[in-house]
Order: sequence, then structure tokens, then C-alpha cells
Amino acid sequence: MRAEFINPFLSAAVNVFGTMLNTTLARGPLALKQNGAPMHDVSGLIGMSGKCRGMVMVSVGRETALNAAGIMLGARPDEVDGDVMDAVGELTNMIAGAAKTQLEEYKLSMGLPTVICGKVETIRFPPEATPIVIPFESALGPVCLEVGLVETSGA
Amino acid sequence: MRAEFINPFLSAAVNVFGTMLNTTLARGPLALKQNGAPMHDVSGLIGMSGKCRGMVMVSVGRETALNAAGIMLGARPDEVDGDVMDAVGELTNMIAGAAKTQLEEYKLSMGLPTVICGKVETIRFPPEATPIVIPFESALGPVCLEVGLVETSGA
Repeated sequence: MRAEFINPFLSAAVNVFGTMLNTTLARGPLALKQNGAPMHDVSGLIGMSGKCRGMVMVSVGRETALNAAGIMLGARPDEVDGDVMDAVGELTNMIAGAAKTQLEEYKLSMGLPTVICGKVETIRFPPEATPIVIPFESALGPVCLEVGLVETSGA
Repeated sequence: MRAEFINPFLSAAVNVFGTMLNTTLARGPLALKQNGAPMHDVSGLIGMSGKCRGMVMVSVGRETALNAAGIMLGARPDEVDGDVMDAVGELTNMIAGAAKTQLEEYKLSMGLPTVICGKVETIRFPPEATPIVIPFESALGPVCLEVGLVETSGA
């Protein structure tokens, strides 16, 4: 994956958490992920396609999800229910959307966010799109962004 | 979701399993899915966008995944490893690709398949894209297709 794909997602995550949740994201070290489980229990996934394509994942801990949903909904839910998952999906959608506008030359379009909750054994991106993983800490709890995009051949 | 989106995915799944795996898929009753876990343990997800957008999931049991990978790879693996997950991703990709050609007027493009393995508590599609679930039985084991697509406003 090209490194130039990363910065737009990184700044999008920082901006979305800042504006929507009034929360500062402190970035940890980037890593290439081979196989493995998502970093956290609640993960929003959104497919992107255009001159590059792949999947973007925003993974948050259950506490992070509840704290974020509490701010977005006005009251903190007690458990990760449909509203909380929709809040994580909406954050995923906003982060991908903000990154998309910065990657205008790739003419990206986005699917809809799908949210997974649970102790997943493995999430495997395609071998050609090994994701770059960006962990963050925040006052709401841990957040992790995984971006696996490749340039589309012939596009 | 529009019913006309379903038949292309249904016939794509039947064709891909027939040509790639020499296996007949016997369709069970369609259902609208609200929330809930995927039907099976190994699920390929692919985002689609264009004049409609959303996510398509092909979910198979572990045995189905091992049996299918055995045919595709020439030898049946003992456990669900990266190669098996890639085989499920490739089946997902082929099913979505075949459906896409039948939905030409929606000018769809596809992301890349991402494969989840494990006992997921919940996979939540966006509320406006409640997926239609199509269960199948086959000699390789159970297969389930979930399609959650909505027409893109303004496209």
C-alpha cells in the first residue's frame, strides 16, 4: 500500500474525533498488519473503490464505543446496542468520507459502513492490500484505524 | 432494499459455486435480517458503490470453507488459515463481480474482500440497508449470502 494513502485517513480520524467528540487522538506507532484479530471489540468497516480500492476499518474498545455514542446520542448507553454500533458506523463513514475528499485524484466512492461486535479471531485483508494499522489513545479510550487500499490496475 | 438487487446475487452465487466448485446450491427461504450474528463462522465482506451502495457478505461454515478451499487449492487444509480465508474472499469477490455485471445500470464498483473468522456477536448493516439473507445448502456445507444495498441519493 502506498504511504500517501495514510496521511489523509490519519488527519481525517483526528479531525472527526476532534469535531464530533471534542476528543484529541494521540497517535501511536504505525505498523503493517499481517493477519490477526482486530485491535478492539467494535469495528466499523467500509469498502472504498475507484482508482484505488480496498477496505478501511475503525476499531474501538467497548468503552470507547459507549463513550463516543454517549456524546453523539446525548446519553451514554449501558451496553453496545444497535445505536452504539450505528454511532461507530457513522464515525467510520465520516473518517472515510473526509479522507476521500483529500484523495480526490483517486475518484473514490464508498460503500456503507458495516459494524462488527465481538471477539473476532481474525480479520484478513487481501494479501495485496495488507493494511497499515494506526493505533491512537484518547480520553474516550483506545481507537485503531486500519487502512488496506491498493491502486486499481488499469484504472 | 429493492428486490431487484437480489436475483443477480442469487444467480451469481449459484453460478460461482457451480463453475468454481462443481457444487449445486439449494436455496432456502429468503429473510430480512435485523441485527444478529452472521450465520456461519467464516464471512467474506465486500463493499460496493455506484448508483447503489452497501455491503455484500458471503458467510460459510468452517467445514464449507475447508471443503471449498480444498477444491480451489487442490488439497484440503486442516484448519482455517490464511489460504482458506483468501479462498472465501475470492469466492465473495467472484459472486459480487458476477452480480455487478448483471446490475450494469447501477455502474457499481467494488472494494476488496475482507474475511472475518470467529464467533462474532453481531454484524450490523446500516439501518437503511437492512440486508436480505439467502441461506443455501450444498454438498460442501451451508452457505449464506447477505446483501445490503441501497440506492444512492442524487446519483
